[in-house]
Amino acid sequence: MVKSPSLDDYRVPFFTDKRTAKFALDAIDASAKPFTTGSKTSDRDRLAVIGAKIDVQQERLHAQHHRRVLLVLQGMDTSGKDGTIRGVFQDVDPLGLRIVAFRAPTPIESARDFLWRVHMQVPSAGELAIFNRSHYEDVLVPRVIGQIDQAEWERRYRQIREFEAMLSECGTTIIKCMLHISKDEQRNRIQARIDDPTKHWKFDLSDLEARNRWDAYQAAYRDVLAATSTEYAPWYVIPANSKSHRNVMVAELLLRALENLKLEFPPAKEELNGLKID
Amino acid sequence: MVKSPSLDDYRVPFFTDKRTAKFALDAIDASAKPFTTGSKTSDRDRLAVIGAKIDVQQERLHAQHHRRVLLVLQGMDTSGKDGTIRGVFQDVDPLGLRIVAFRAPTPIESARDFLWRVHMQVPSAGELAIFNRSHYEDVLVPRVIGQIDQAEWERRYRQIREFEAMLSECGTTIIKCMLHISKDEQRNRIQARIDDPTKHWKFDLSDLEARNRWDAYQAAYRDVLAATSTEYAPWYVIPANSKSHRNVMVAELLLRALENLKLEFPPAKEELNGLKID
Repeated sequence: MVKSPSLDDYRVPFFTDKRTAKFALDAIDASAKPFTTGSKTSDRDRLAVIGAKIDVQQERLHAQHHRRVLLVLQGMDTSGKDGTIRGVFQDVDPLGLRIVAFRAPTPIESARDFLWRVHMQVPSAGELAIFNRSHYEDVLVPRVIGQIDQAEWERRYRQIREFEAMLSECGTTIIKCMLHISKDEQRNRIQARIDDPTKHWKFDLSDLEARNRWDAYQAAYRDVLAATSTEYAPWYVIPANSKSHRNVMVAELLLRALENLKLEFPPAKEELNGLKID
Repeated sequence: MVKSPSLDDYRVPFFTDKRTAKFALDAIDASAKPFTTGSKTSDRDRLAVIGAKIDVQQERLHAQHHRRVLLVLQGMDTSGKDGTIRGVFQDVDPLGLRIVAFRAPTPIESARDFLWRVHMQVPSAGELAIFNRSHYEDVLVPRVIGQIDQAEWERRYRQIREFEAMLSECGTTIIKCMLHISKDEQRNRIQARIDDPTKHWKFDLSDLEARNRWDAYQAAYRDVLAATSTEYAPWYVIPANSKSHRNVMVAELLLRALENLKLEFPPAKEELNGLKID
């Protein structure tokens, strides 16, 4: 009997103080499509169904004005962070979303701790916020380019765990997705951008620097995921060579998290019962 | 021969120093549907076509990273500000939108000038921002409830004109839509919310206070529109008793404004021509 895949098969094992090294990012096949039928058309149909359900949940979240939901998207260049947002949320009311893109820190941001700009953007009551990149950049880029040493990145891992624990304790549901593509797939996607002059604006030669350090980034990702996947803020690795698989899987994860909140509309107001408006 | 309707027939005459009183909000029929066929299905199809075109324009706006676009939505309770955002932008990439809802000012906001919180939320280069309510609340509510006198609201009109002129000069295209419903239509919509207990969260008995001062609000709107419709930030009155008409008309206005910007993708980068990625 074949076991059907579970979303939790792709959840990074939770961090413990005696961290074991059993999580291997490179053992996860970026081309896998465990959560789709393999047909683009039926994936799109399925995505529309999940999207409509997310929309229903999001309206309740907004109506209740209590819980907050944060979806963090990370991944190498061209891994599809923008495309995921577009794909997953095309059937969700834009009013209920706040999308925050974190770019290279500005001088004002760099002059504060690395969580400062992130804290300012956390979702408020009833809000669903999506981070397109996040505080996780600050334990990836500076490590790979040698700006921080191991003591510093380990300290940041702890600071991130404590920050996310606080957010969770204060009512925020956190889901973190690492969009996992292969180096070959990235080559194809970058090449496609280069071959289409209307897409040159999306690409800069300096973007190749990260590609040239692919292995170092993968190693940094592995450590970050292992050190910051927690019960209150789990990481999921999303096989993302297939765009439709990626979208379906992220949508399923988000829907499951929302449904687990058992959101209901606020109770009816007695003073409105039977009221007739002039 | 019947003249076909033009969007500019619904543009509020531009403010001049010797303001004439020729603009009459109450002469505009909230039930009119000049920009639709009258069939909901064909309105929806048309909206999808316009939405797809807005999406194309928005991608160029983002790619160019230069111009900024601001859509301001105002209207009485239940006039459909939320519904307009959902309807007009359902085919537009949520990544390209920033929706800002202005509610009753917080103590921190009230402690500053009324444009402070608004200035913080203006669209940045390449961004399309939608204000769901705006600084215009500050020349409506405080006037109707008697918190400010005519000298103060006239001063605010001028401050708004000057602020919007500055935004325009610095690269922001501003479109302002007043969603115009009739008092009867508002009754029906409020009654529908009251009759559906799952919608009670959208409604509070205190919301009826504004309805009870309907005429005062209409008069305040009339003055505001006349005093702040300018070439650089025109006001349009949107007949909004029909939701599908409202959506089509707002979408048409936004699309026209975007097309007038003649947005193109940035030029291809020479250094990428013929480049092959390893």
